[in-house]
Amino acid sequence: MTENIYIGSKPILNYVTAIVTAFQRAPIVNVLARGRAISSAIDAVEVCRRSFLKDLCVDEINIGTEQMGSDDDLRNVSTINIQLSKTS
Amino acid sequence: MTENIYIGSKPILNYVTAIVTAFQRAPIVNVLARGRAISSAIDAVEVCRRSFLKDLCVDEINIGTEQMGSDDDLRNVSTINIQLSKTS
Repeated sequence: MTENIYIGSKPILNYVTAIVTAFQRAPIVNVLARGRAISSAIDAVEVCRRSFLKDLCVDEINIGTEQMGSDDDLRNVSTINIQLSKTS
Repeated sequence: MTENIYIGSKPILNYVTAIVTAFQRAPIVNVLARGRAISSAIDAVEVCRRSFLKDLCVDEINIGTEQMGSDDDLRNVSTINIQLSKTS
């Protein structure tokens, strides 16, 4: 059972609370982001780890590329997937 | 022997060429970035992997937090360290 949290352009603390509550439903949480939101994803994970979930463990980080837009305006966007779990 | 490439606010292709040439000097290249530049770091690595170094391998990605600024204006900044090597 895993939960996915998609990071966008809302304030970081919204995603921090989303991650914390996701751990009440599943032992593994994936934090996903694209493009400019990648920095926010790492901010959210770091705030979680330092302030809310001291036992947070970053299992794996994967990066990749996705194609976005339609035929005329096709462009490549970088993606990140941060897999989190709790040690205890 | 490792080479470090620090990502800032220059155009992505500057960092792509920096990574490609770094591999002529060392077998392992670390790509480092802080804050907003984290997205650019992943863009640079992805462009390298897709267009220039087909045998590029992302060994490890680490995230962390650094304190920046002086006493009055101390703030936490997220960091990323992407360790790259070539499979062949």
